[in-house]
Amino acid sequence: MRLSNGWVRQAVSEAVSAVDRRWLVRALTLAENGLFTATPNPRVGCVICRSGRVIGEGWHRAAGEAHAEIIAMRQCDNNLRDADVYVNLEPCAHEGRTPPCAPLLAAARPARVVIATLDPNPTVSGKGVALLRDAGIDVVVVPPSDIIFQQALALNIGFVSRMVRKRPWLQLKIAATLDGKTALSSGLSRWISGERARIDAHYLRARSCAILTGIGTAQADDPQLTVRHVHTPRQPQRILVDRHLQATSTLRLFAGGAIVASAQSVPDFFADGVEVLSLPDSSGRVDLLQLMCELSARGINEVLVEAGRRLSGALLAAGLVDEIVLYQAPRVFGDSAFSMFDAPAPSTPAEAPTFALRQIEPLGDGDIKIIYDSLTAQQQLTAGIIDAATAKNA
Amino acid sequence: MRLSNGWVRQAVSEAVSAVDRRWLVRALTLAENGLFTATPNPRVGCVICRSGRVIGEGWHRAAGEAHAEIIAMRQCDNNLRDADVYVNLEPCAHEGRTPPCAPLLAAARPARVVIATLDPNPTVSGKGVALLRDAGIDVVVVPPSDIIFQQALALNIGFVSRMVRKRPWLQLKIAATLDGKTALSSGLSRWISGERARIDAHYLRARSCAILTGIGTAQADDPQLTVRHVHTPRQPQRILVDRHLQATSTLRLFAGGAIVASAQSVPDFFADGVEVLSLPDSSGRVDLLQLMCELSARGINEVLVEAGRRLSGALLAAGLVDEIVLYQAPRVFGDSAFSMFDAPAPSTPAEAPTFALRQIEPLGDGDIKIIYDSLTAQQQLTAGIIDAATAKNA
Repeated sequence: MRLSNGWVRQAVSEAVSAVDRRWLVRALTLAENGLFTATPNPRVGCVICRSGRVIGEGWHRAAGEAHAEIIAMRQCDNNLRDADVYVNLEPCAHEGRTPPCAPLLAAARPARVVIATLDPNPTVSGKGVALLRDAGIDVVVVPPSDIIFQQALALNIGFVSRMVRKRPWLQLKIAATLDGKTALSSGLSRWISGERARIDAHYLRARSCAILTGIGTAQADDPQLTVRHVHTPRQPQRILVDRHLQATSTLRLFAGGAIVASAQSVPDFFADGVEVLSLPDSSGRVDLLQLMCELSARGINEVLVEAGRRLSGALLAAGLVDEIVLYQAPRVFGDSAFSMFDAPAPSTPAEAPTFALRQIEPLGDGDIKIIYDSLTAQQQLTAGIIDAATAKNA
Repeated sequence: MRLSNGWVRQAVSEAVSAVDRRWLVRALTLAENGLFTATPNPRVGCVICRSGRVIGEGWHRAAGEAHAEIIAMRQCDNNLRDADVYVNLEPCAHEGRTPPCAPLLAAARPARVVIATLDPNPTVSGKGVALLRDAGIDVVVVPPSDIIFQQALALNIGFVSRMVRKRPWLQLKIAATLDGKTALSSGLSRWISGERARIDAHYLRARSCAILTGIGTAQADDPQLTVRHVHTPRQPQRILVDRHLQATSTLRLFAGGAIVASAQSVPDFFADGVEVLSLPDSSGRVDLLQLMCELSARGINEVLVEAGRRLSGALLAAGLVDEIVLYQAPRVFGDSAFSMFDAPAPSTPAEAPTFALRQIEPLGDGDIKIIYDSLTAQQQLTAGIIDAATAKNA
């Protein structure tokens, strides 16, 4: 390779011009078309411009189908002379189910390639950029401090998490009252929040690769855990944590197939279309980190958790909660109702698990959507992107 | 009186011009100067304009001192010829500790008087308007649907509550984690939220007429319940709900005087500067509605509650919570920590006490300030203002 570590440092210190920013935002918007379908691949959009005019656009719909860059290039007959290529993720340099994009781009000889974020996939991570630069093409990589980088990271947070941490991005969805209660002690939990919050939660399901719940919720509410109210051609994988394999085969979430994570040995047969994983930890519970690693190995980028206080508490205690999406309703259930997290109490308030506030949005009917992020996960992933590229090019 | 019910209906249907709106906002801003001091009087500001120029301004600082209108009139030597007078509350028509404003205004013969809200005080309530109109002066009253009316009501919500409902406006302040916990089960509750939230809470104290807490909090935390971090010449009254008179005389909230509400008979002596009220209900608890009526009779407009889950729960169950100010910190304490409200569980989610969302504000450090209002209290007070004026002029 022509360039050593230096190129990463240099690349990420470049400022992004207003024009480049505009087309990167367009590339991100195109990439979002793959929000519900691209998994296990990242969501990628590409815009090709010449003299300020768009001559090609594309986005990646699903694994096995054409990549965004290829679709965009086709629209201008692969003629990229004097053109600028905008893409939200570094073009791939490896042979996958489709031929790699970076060499094809290099061969088409555009003037510039502008990239919102490097690809931490070990088979890419800087190789795409190096290949283009070796071909004499001007490459701009957006620095991590830029909001465009952060939006690009957010769009593929699960994919980046799987590449960098070998586990999915874990999003915990909670509907609770203003006093932090998720269900009455009688078990009644339906309709805590209003219709808009419920529909919004189906968008979370639609973009997730898998929905995780626990045996308590499965038995109490018998949820389907399918995407409804939102149009999508793909249903996420359903995963049930069921330590003692207590689930009955008639659970609605089993319809169409599911995975059960247990601490028992795998039985010969459990239920139609249901795969049982045996993942005991040393205390005979389901090893949740192991489960996440296993899901990651299966190409699961984003896991949405819709569980009760026991599984939510165990995930919190295991440090696996990357994001909390809280739908807070303007009601009060009082002390006797169920709280969110069955987790060990911190010894002092300062030692309590703490999150960063990312977003607040009123949803109507007095409901609020509040998103909290792990204090460290995003920095970890940003560092992981840089490190992967640096290591590759060292 | 010249005008019957008709004038109220007619008055409240008038639209407010942009110019009038501008000076009413100025009057409200002036009135806010009395936020910490006007009690038990309402906060009132007055602007006098001639040909679009301000010729007099005033605001009411404290009971016994000059009213806003009088101060503003002095600045233009009581010469109100062709002038417009803007005031956020109907000028008083009754002899109080100071002479009534409406006759003095009428005598000074301004062209118009523009009023943001009528005064529900039974000694005023429409009389001020009627007196001015009888003197041939054009009077505009802002309709209740207008945001200016609502701002004027919010500024004097406690005063209006005391006049209309014979009880103070009750604001419940809660600092909680995102999982709705107010203290660890060890009792540790300090520093749940960050510095800005704590200072903001001192503004709530500074504008309140009284701060109410329960014996549990008093014994566990021994709070001073004084205004600090905010400059004010007035400290609110401290009130302790202590059913069995268990408080020791060394409690810090007793320093400088306090009121104790108990269900016991009044002892000859309890503690220096501490007045004991005996307000038992039929089950031997403190009758909280009675306590509110008693505080109202003493001129308390706004009560800020800073209590634990028992008193907060009892106030909620009694339907006395008009407003919840929730400082929500981005931490998780888990199930074993204390929740907000020790109140009877509703039988279904739909029957749970429900509030309206009024305001959301991020405070930094991941803290959010969320204000919930009673679904009905503001409408009650608005109706009360209209009804009082209508009855007076019927």
